[in-house]
Amino acid sequence: MKKALTIDVGGTKIYSAIVNSEGKIVSEIEKHSTPKTYDKILEVFKELINKHEDEVDVIAFSTCGAVNNTNDGILGSTGNICKEYPSTDFKSLSRKKVFVENDANCAAWAEHVIGASKGYKYSVMLTLGTGVGGGIILDNKLYKGKSGAAGEMHFKMTRTPQRDCTCGSWGCFEAYASGTGLKLTAEEIAETKEITTYDVIDGVKAKDVLMTKIFNTWQDDILNGIIGLANIFDPDVVVLSGSMAEFVDTGYLTEETNRQIVTQPTKVVKAQAGNYSGMIGAGLLALGVEG
Amino acid sequence: MKKALTIDVGGTKIYSAIVNSEGKIVSEIEKHSTPKTYDKILEVFKELINKHEDEVDVIAFSTCGAVNNTNDGILGSTGNICKEYPSTDFKSLSRKKVFVENDANCAAWAEHVIGASKGYKYSVMLTLGTGVGGGIILDNKLYKGKSGAAGEMHFKMTRTPQRDCTCGSWGCFEAYASGTGLKLTAEEIAETKEITTYDVIDGVKAKDVLMTKIFNTWQDDILNGIIGLANIFDPDVVVLSGSMAEFVDTGYLTEETNRQIVTQPTKVVKAQAGNYSGMIGAGLLALGVEG
Repeated sequence: MKKALTIDVGGTKIYSAIVNSEGKIVSEIEKHSTPKTYDKILEVFKELINKHEDEVDVIAFSTCGAVNNTNDGILGSTGNICKEYPSTDFKSLSRKKVFVENDANCAAWAEHVIGASKGYKYSVMLTLGTGVGGGIILDNKLYKGKSGAAGEMHFKMTRTPQRDCTCGSWGCFEAYASGTGLKLTAEEIAETKEITTYDVIDGVKAKDVLMTKIFNTWQDDILNGIIGLANIFDPDVVVLSGSMAEFVDTGYLTEETNRQIVTQPTKVVKAQAGNYSGMIGAGLLALGVEG
Repeated sequence: MKKALTIDVGGTKIYSAIVNSEGKIVSEIEKHSTPKTYDKILEVFKELINKHEDEVDVIAFSTCGAVNNTNDGILGSTGNICKEYPSTDFKSLSRKKVFVENDANCAAWAEHVIGASKGYKYSVMLTLGTGVGGGIILDNKLYKGKSGAAGEMHFKMTRTPQRDCTCGSWGCFEAYASGTGLKLTAEEIAETKEITTYDVIDGVKAKDVLMTKIFNTWQDDILNGIIGLANIFDPDVVVLSGSMAEFVDTGYLTEETNRQIVTQPTKVVKAQAGNYSGMIGAGLLALGVEG
């Protein structure tokens, strides 16, 4: 069975493992903190590749940042990783074929091939973490747009600026639906900076009225975004992944979405491909495994 | 050259003409008011088809309402046309092949083959009229979604209900970016019901401060919607069509969109396929003409 050495590059961690064409991780998972300097990042890549290159058919990167349509380079900047990183010449890192894709796109592909959107031709995945990532599968293909950068969930939730977004603009879905968004919503409603997402989640469990109000406001922001995406894409399924996804009520989101959309009924479900879906998806994409 | 008898069915008018495979109208354009009763609508269809059936290769309907993926029936309801209309068995209307597509999708296809998005693989068209229609072309194909209903521009512009939408929900792009939206924005800002879209357009030409503020608010609502669509789709071009499109400043919309998006630069342009783009697009689609 064919195998890929997969390397997941985020702003804080670099993970690596060997993934086979069934989407199974067949090695130890190696973890590194993402070095601050570009030289040290390249050292980590080279060390991983030198060690495993001969065992695999392809090197597959799941990375922060938008990736071009030839899957060999990063478009634009990537936020919280050193500024030279987007200029990386990935092909030069190995004698083997090197494949690069955006991490949210990789995770969406993993869900499509082995996870929650398996068997569906049309799906939208939202990764709800510190920020929000997006991956769109249309007619069983990863949707990339004209340059490769598609699937950015930066659509506005307000008509005028009320909350800045990490993208440099304001009012984006990410600024409301992310974990960071939940904290900001909590601060606004509770009128204090001394509140965390944990306070909200714990408060909901304890049936605290204020914390429940905060949580529902955040969940309805997610709902409102999903309604728009469902009207635009008419997807079979909307998959929620990421650390914040575990808290939402997908039954409520499905019911309310279907009550409000003008397209045909859809489903909102939680991701099933696990914490390493980025690496798994990168491996499956690099190995040409379709869903 | 192959030809289609095209019939454009709206809530107030039914237009018909023969369109050839170059997207040219090669007959008189026949106009009917849309009858109130279903029997009379069918009579109009039968009369048109009986008259022209022998001259053409296919019958092509450009219709209000979402159309299924087999292009032979309407999904759900259609608003301001008699309630039996969506149940129409289009295939039974002619001995020739009958093809049906949503009017905004048809118009988007006309722009793609002979108009403003010609030569581009990825485009989003917004029809700004009494309401807002949408048509999405991805990788040179009309995007229809799982059931055919995709491309509905009902994504929310506000986090809480402030303006009802014709779709039954609230806060949608259509409720702000349409001509109806401009009137509502004018009423809110001018604090009077005694104001029309004409007052606003004329006032902008006369450099009236209040009318210019109203217009800019409406145009920025359109901008905010375009920014979201550009981040989601990474399109080559966003095409604005419909009666309200002539008033917007596409230079401003392009510049501001590109300043705010995280995907790669796009262009906002006005439609070029003319007033009968629905019929032209229906003909081109029915005849299998690609862009």
